[in-house]
Amino acid sequence: MRFDTDYIEGCHPRILERLAETNFEQEPGYGRDAYCARAAECIRAALGRPAVAVHFVPGGTQANVTVISHALRPYEGVLSPTTGHINGHETGATEARGHKVLPLPSVEAKITAEQVAAYLSHYRAMPDPEHEIAPKMVYLSQPTEQGTLYSKAELSAFREICDRYGLYLFVDGARLGYALATDANDVSLSDLADLCDAFTIGGTKVGAMFGEAIVIENPEINRDFRYAIKQNEGMLAKGRYLGLQFEALFTDDLYFENGRHGIEMASYLRDALTAMGYPFLSQSPTNQIFPILPRHEVEALEQLHAFERWEDVDADLVAVRFVTSWATRKEDLDVLIADLKRIHG
Amino acid sequence: MRFDTDYIEGCHPRILERLAETNFEQEPGYGRDAYCARAAECIRAALGRPAVAVHFVPGGTQANVTVISHALRPYEGVLSPTTGHINGHETGATEARGHKVLPLPSVEAKITAEQVAAYLSHYRAMPDPEHEIAPKMVYLSQPTEQGTLYSKAELSAFREICDRYGLYLFVDGARLGYALATDANDVSLSDLADLCDAFTIGGTKVGAMFGEAIVIENPEINRDFRYAIKQNEGMLAKGRYLGLQFEALFTDDLYFENGRHGIEMASYLRDALTAMGYPFLSQSPTNQIFPILPRHEVEALEQLHAFERWEDVDADLVAVRFVTSWATRKEDLDVLIADLKRIHG
Amino acid sequence: MRFDTDYIEGCHPRILERLAETNFEQEPGYGRDAYCARAAECIRAALGRPAVAVHFVPGGTQANVTVISHALRPYEGVLSPTTGHINGHETGATEARGHKVLPLPSVEAKITAEQVAAYLSHYRAMPDPEHEIAPKMVYLSQPTEQGTLYSKAELSAFREICDRYGLYLFVDGARLGYALATDANDVSLSDLADLCDAFTIGGTKVGAMFGEAIVIENPEINRDFRYAIKQNEGMLAKGRYLGLQFEALFTDDLYFENGRHGIEMASYLRDALTAMGYPFLSQSPTNQIFPILPRHEVEALEQLHAFERWEDVDADLVAVRFVTSWATRKEDLDVLIADLKRIHG
Amino acid sequence: MRFDTDYIEGCHPRILERLAETNFEQEPGYGRDAYCARAAECIRAALGRPAVAVHFVPGGTQANVTVISHALRPYEGVLSPTTGHINGHETGATEARGHKVLPLPSVEAKITAEQVAAYLSHYRAMPDPEHEIAPKMVYLSQPTEQGTLYSKAELSAFREICDRYGLYLFVDGARLGYALATDANDVSLSDLADLCDAFTIGGTKVGAMFGEAIVIENPEINRDFRYAIKQNEGMLAKGRYLGLQFEALFTDDLYFENGRHGIEMASYLRDALTAMGYPFLSQSPTNQIFPILPRHEVEALEQLHAFERWEDVDADLVAVRFVTSWATRKEDLDVLIADLKRIHG
Repeated sequence: MRFDTDYIEGCHPRILERLAETNFEQEPGYGRDAYCARAAECIRAALGRPAVAVHFVPGGTQANVTVISHALRPYEGVLSPTTGHINGHETGATEARGHKVLPLPSVEAKITAEQVAAYLSHYRAMPDPEHEIAPKMVYLSQPTEQGTLYSKAELSAFREICDRYGLYLFVDGARLGYALATDANDVSLSDLADLCDAFTIGGTKVGAMFGEAIVIENPEINRDFRYAIKQNEGMLAKGRYLGLQFEALFTDDLYFENGRHGIEMASYLRDALTAMGYPFLSQSPTNQIFPILPRHEVEALEQLHAFERWEDVDADLVAVRFVTSWATRKEDLDVLIADLKRIHG
Repeated sequence: MRFDTDYIEGCHPRILERLAETNFEQEPGYGRDAYCARAAECIRAALGRPAVAVHFVPGGTQANVTVISHALRPYEGVLSPTTGHINGHETGATEARGHKVLPLPSVEAKITAEQVAAYLSHYRAMPDPEHEIAPKMVYLSQPTEQGTLYSKAELSAFREICDRYGLYLFVDGARLGYALATDANDVSLSDLADLCDAFTIGGTKVGAMFGEAIVIENPEINRDFRYAIKQNEGMLAKGRYLGLQFEALFTDDLYFENGRHGIEMASYLRDALTAMGYPFLSQSPTNQIFPILPRHEVEALEQLHAFERWEDVDADLVAVRFVTSWATRKEDLDVLIADLKRIHG
Repeated sequence: MRFDTDYIEGCHPRILERLAETNFEQEPGYGRDAYCARAAECIRAALGRPAVAVHFVPGGTQANVTVISHALRPYEGVLSPTTGHINGHETGATEARGHKVLPLPSVEAKITAEQVAAYLSHYRAMPDPEHEIAPKMVYLSQPTEQGTLYSKAELSAFREICDRYGLYLFVDGARLGYALATDANDVSLSDLADLCDAFTIGGTKVGAMFGEAIVIENPEINRDFRYAIKQNEGMLAKGRYLGLQFEALFTDDLYFENGRHGIEMASYLRDALTAMGYPFLSQSPTNQIFPILPRHEVEALEQLHAFERWEDVDADLVAVRFVTSWATRKEDLDVLIADLKRIHG
Repeated sequence: MRFDTDYIEGCHPRILERLAETNFEQEPGYGRDAYCARAAECIRAALGRPAVAVHFVPGGTQANVTVISHALRPYEGVLSPTTGHINGHETGATEARGHKVLPLPSVEAKITAEQVAAYLSHYRAMPDPEHEIAPKMVYLSQPTEQGTLYSKAELSAFREICDRYGLYLFVDGARLGYALATDANDVSLSDLADLCDAFTIGGTKVGAMFGEAIVIENPEINRDFRYAIKQNEGMLAKGRYLGLQFEALFTDDLYFENGRHGIEMASYLRDALTAMGYPFLSQSPTNQIFPILPRHEVEALEQLHAFERWEDVDADLVAVRFVTSWATRKEDLDVLIADLKRIHG
């Protein structure tokens, strides 16, 4: 069985149903269809913001690069945690469109508003700032690449710094559904709309076949955004599939339900691992958990299940990653836990 | 009813069936899954080339840009008919990745090998060629943006010129299924593999939800190609959906059947229009047809059906585009024809 | 002797004198020096516009690309005559920075405001303009690549169309000094400042060692322009050399004198060629002239002097280019004319 | 007086003499002139490598970006010290051409071959390396941005690692003349040619008006390099000025003499500062020196002379930068030292 990531299964059955029901309806292409329009309405309703712009693209890297390359002028860059997805997991797609990622050291994959303020304060004091990339955007992930969360207070602090220095705040929500479903979280969808210039709502990892919604609060970024989608190769001819999926996810709270299930499963597994005495690399309250196991246990467990080695803690200990999702079955976790107990002895 | 393009419906029911059957299977991400592997095998079998490289990306612009930007060095450009999709329909995505499209005047959306030879002969004779973009690739579409076809003799002539001057030949097959199903066509899939350095097999317009296969014959272009897919934002996390669809399309000849149906419907409509005495803008033997109608008939028909105005022929006449597909129903064409007859009087 | 271009000699002696006089003065780098400041003042005085922005970069391609890539957003392109320098003589530098050049057919290297209006009118009428590059700038050269000139009425017409459609007007003045010195010209420096959003004043071909001044009227384009100069690799450490040269050229009318000498020499040669009965490819009133010679005369003259074959008119006739400059000596032209007379028989 | 950098004066008088002597010679443009040819020969002779490729461009950022963007494929990046010029002082010019700079933590502006080996070893062990930029080049500066030097043993270790992993080694020699003239240095010009795939020899800071020589040992990088120069906006119309200056610098050892003078002046100043008891931020043996001064002394000295604050060491202490050059006069240093002594008390 696979516990290595949250995109190993297909999609939520309600999406399959909708695909079948609507297959022979005729719709215009390139996102001009009724599904995209309704999906955007559903998301606006969930945000409580009737006028915000909502776009859809197939992939997460695409969502990030399209927003970043459309928002920034050529000499502007984006501040990101060193661990940020755009910095190390997208094959330099941001740079391929001409923009430097300005990495800030992170702790548990998070940075602080103070780091941003210090960077800007230093930058603004330079006698010749034009020799360096002008920081113009802060990129964060919620949850982060290590499953951790920003609190509402933390995001508000970023907002304040961004306002002070004229920066955009952009939040990558590839796994946002799992953040929203966690007790530890105090940032709602509408908080994100209040605090960010733009953010994404990931579909792929929360029950869709594929697809990310881009929510744009700042009209400067939204201007001519469809050009950016097309140029960034994200305008599907049958855009209806993006709309159809997000309409399903944002009908009857399916997106939130999917998140909750993933979180319940993660908690179940986390509790079992804690009970077995394993420490954790980070205090992730979301659907990615990072227990630290003896190397020989990792090797033994790898014979039975798929999961990811995250990093070597020392010669004997390895942090691994287990990921649950909307589709994880409790009985499969029980098998994993039983196998690990047997190996652990 | 809509006759404006071939991506107004959903997908072939066999794809829906396969989605449902496989939904809870677990597969690794990013194109490393068993479906992509099997789909590539099916395509290799259809090509009769067991070793050719096959990749999958969600969209057609993406397929074009990924191949072009990976194959060319920064100072190299791509020769294209002025009407080529990369020249006027992709929001400058090729240029956004740094490469100039070198347009050649086209007739019925086609160029000739002689035009390419003349361009290269002139270019090579320059005393200082480094002041101009070096032509390194020829881009063609089969069928073209106006539904016309290159013959095997014509493609062979391009191949010869490309060999003479060290150029790549790249064919965009976004609607390839409709070319392959036409009596007027003498270029088989395996001919394309023989003659091209790379070509695409379009899924979106021939029965898939989305997805294009990229077939790469030339190992120079294929080297590290997965990096290019990722950087061009085309590596779906659930890559299985690309594989699953192409496996279905290349099982039991579904791709070819889909093409045939679209062509039969186009012929049926073309015959009716011819019988009514309409001239055509181009002699398209494929699923796009371009009759020339009096302007007032166009206006009347627009009240009833969706189709595209293609270009104004003169003050009184307008060329329009009707597109059939794998999903077009004969009874719908009968309605269109009846309506047009009534308008035509 | 060489008559092939206007950058075969060094620079005007007054520049050499200024180099020697100022060599051991100490100045800050990167264009923050007193020479650049004074040169900008001189140019502002010549323009009669005390507040316009003036920048300096080493080369002409650099000046063009820096303005274009700084002014345009990623999905915007620049309309240019097919013969425009940016379209065919800069190795795709504009595309390398991500922007499509949208070529318009030219006559004697000129386009008309009507062509631009027609393009924009067509573009704006598209139902889905985001599939094509948005035209945002018109690029012209004064004089053109074939030595011809735009009149004030013509430039005013471009201005009006640009205002109507929200486009920038950018004029490449690599050889501007020769335009300004021609009787046939009715466009003054201050007219250019009135009519353009930005234009360049070429130094290299009008007596400098190197260097182009960029005059920016539109504050939208000027915002953060020094970042663009640095990123486009045009910010010389010893920027003083740019300032020193332009200060010299715009002191005591040296720039205009240099232009006048080049034009006088061109007229002298043109008159001699006309008297000998040669036709001309274009009616260039500036320092590039394009007589049409029998091929055997071209071949004979090539044994004696350097000049450029421009294009084959037919099997027997070749248009060639002779270029005069601020440094051309009448006695050298007399040798050329005498040689040609002997060949012509 | 200014001690803030080594490009505050003009150029060595022998260059001025050559400018005057050659001003009315006629030469073809764009680097095809006799001066560039002779300058390249002089440099090949100095390197003891009769076949190596030598090119010239106006600026240092240009030299770096042209080499990097020409050598790398779109998904490849360049490892650099965090302090590297390309990482923080070129306004993202490398990223603007699409390439990520992969920063490695540096000590006194240097990295080690072991760091590169560790990075590559980690990278190569990844199951899915295509999600990250492929490291393909190591960028170093000699001397570094803090005046320190790599030894021959250190550079040989980089060479070995680069060979092991198929990377290019590129050395930025913007101040190379000062490295070559230092007793502490054991890396000769011909060592650089032995060890690097490409390196630059800076003219601007070592006595030229402007200009950098690019030496390319690896034919893969040199292929079609003139296209890259033109596209990177570095091909001066009057390329002769680049050739003329480098011919002068590499005739009668002028380049080395210039370096020696700068180093003698730096030693003189360093000895005086050491005698006064100041500590130094880094052990720079070259022409940039970084003494640490009490803040109030810095403020007092700033009233008298220009120099750069480098970084705040703590609340009371500031590291500053003094730079000497080929043009520094001992009597000016004596004034500086006397002023500082008076302030220091």
